[in-house]
Amino acid sequence: MGFTLVLGGARSGKSRHAEALVARHAAPWAYIATAEAWDGEMRDRIAQHQARRDARWATIGAPLDLPGALDQAGDRPALVDCLTLWLTNLMLGEHDVAAATAALEAALDGRAAPTVLVANEVGLGIVPENRLARAFRDQAGLLNQRLAARAAHVHFVAAGLPLVMKGDA
Amino acid sequence: MGFTLVLGGARSGKSRHAEALVARHAAPWAYIATAEAWDGEMRDRIAQHQARRDARWATIGAPLDLPGALDQAGDRPALVDCLTLWLTNLMLGEHDVAAATAALEAALDGRAAPTVLVANEVGLGIVPENRLARAFRDQAGLLNQRLAARAAHVHFVAAGLPLVMKGDA
Amino acid sequence: MGFTLVLGGARSGKSRHAEALVARHAAPWAYIATAEAWDGEMRDRIAQHQARRDARWATIGAPLDLPGALDQAGDRPALVDCLTLWLTNLMLGEHDVAAATAALEAALDGRAAPTVLVANEVGLGIVPENRLARAFRDQAGLLNQRLAARAAHVHFVAAGLPLVMKGDA
Repeated sequence: MGFTLVLGGARSGKSRHAEALVARHAAPWAYIATAEAWDGEMRDRIAQHQARRDARWATIGAPLDLPGALDQAGDRPALVDCLTLWLTNLMLGEHDVAAATAALEAALDGRAAPTVLVANEVGLGIVPENRLARAFRDQAGLLNQRLAARAAHVHFVAAGLPLVMKGDA
Repeated sequence: MGFTLVLGGARSGKSRHAEALVARHAAPWAYIATAEAWDGEMRDRIAQHQARRDARWATIGAPLDLPGALDQAGDRPALVDCLTLWLTNLMLGEHDVAAATAALEAALDGRAAPTVLVANEVGLGIVPENRLARAFRDQAGLLNQRLAARAAHVHFVAAGLPLVMKGDA
Repeated sequence: MGFTLVLGGARSGKSRHAEALVARHAAPWAYIATAEAWDGEMRDRIAQHQARRDARWATIGAPLDLPGALDQAGDRPALVDCLTLWLTNLMLGEHDVAAATAALEAALDGRAAPTVLVANEVGLGIVPENRLARAFRDQAGLLNQRLAARAAHVHFVAAGLPLVMKGDA
């Protein structure tokens, strides 16, 4: 079964939209969280997202190992939130992004249950002055392109409203 | 009557598009300006926008009190330009954003005349290094989501071209 | 014949999409490159783009003189990649942007062969703290608006997927 990629900016409502897509299927659902609570600000963001989800969501923490988390999700419809933080974790840990991306693609190809992946669009501002930020922006854009090419459905979310870029609504 | 929300980036042509939407209705029109001329750069931007509008537009300055300005506009079709500067003014003055947003929503619900609101989309670049910028980006995104959910029509403008996200063109 | 404008963020796949649009027409094709290799990072980006193009593409370097390059392209379908770097070159060299834009428009109006222009959308992030970056963002937005108004077709590309804003796919 093809997966759905939900793209959007910060605070665009992309996570909420992705949750609604997963919740079209019968519960229980798996929420695969790539965020790590390094600081208070991140902890707050994670807590806000969690507060929205009820007990039918089982949270699987996966800062790096998305194939393992998808395997653990098994037959349950799954939401991966989000790929851009996963990429951040890979880059900060100096992991092989190309190899990790290929492993993710293989895991997605092998999945039978519905899967929705959330990613940030980060390339529509001014060129960052910081070289690392430029490198990250490049990697994030390339990852989004790769997954969008493989996805059955791609939605772009702005102000909570989805725009279908590929496949169905 | 439902309102229209026009979203777009900097220099996307969103104000011009919003003016054209208001000008579909009979003049006179109310232009509700949230900008304040703190410095020369802002003064130039305001002057450029004003130079485009003819005498059928009555300008109402409203850096903070949008409900009052909408009340003053009365039966005239009104343009609010823009919500993102209004949010900036609220945050700089340490006003209660949630309360101000609720008051704006109530004022919009009570309006019979056509209303078009302009807002910036600011969340599609790299995460800002500045914590205040991140907080602002969050608030702006949440405000856009809230108003988009309530709007009858939402247009996203890029390079002067509108894309209908909700409602009609 | 009207031209096509392809807009998108960094690493959105806009160049690849634009190349595919040009390659719908019979080869040989002209690739008009506005990039200059000031440093290693830029040299790498240029090399990556070149590696993708085969011998049917003739590269014409044009950091500033786009009308001359379009004239040199003659009857060949041409790709201009990209307008945003061209604008950067104009601004860094303190050239007259308005005059250069008018000359580009005249050159496009006079062209009979298919032409695709690539440009970056840079206005969807937080307001840059740097004044020059704000000025650049303004100029880039205005240039995109001007060319979008004149274009027969405008596509917005995100994650490699084109969205038709004007004209045909």
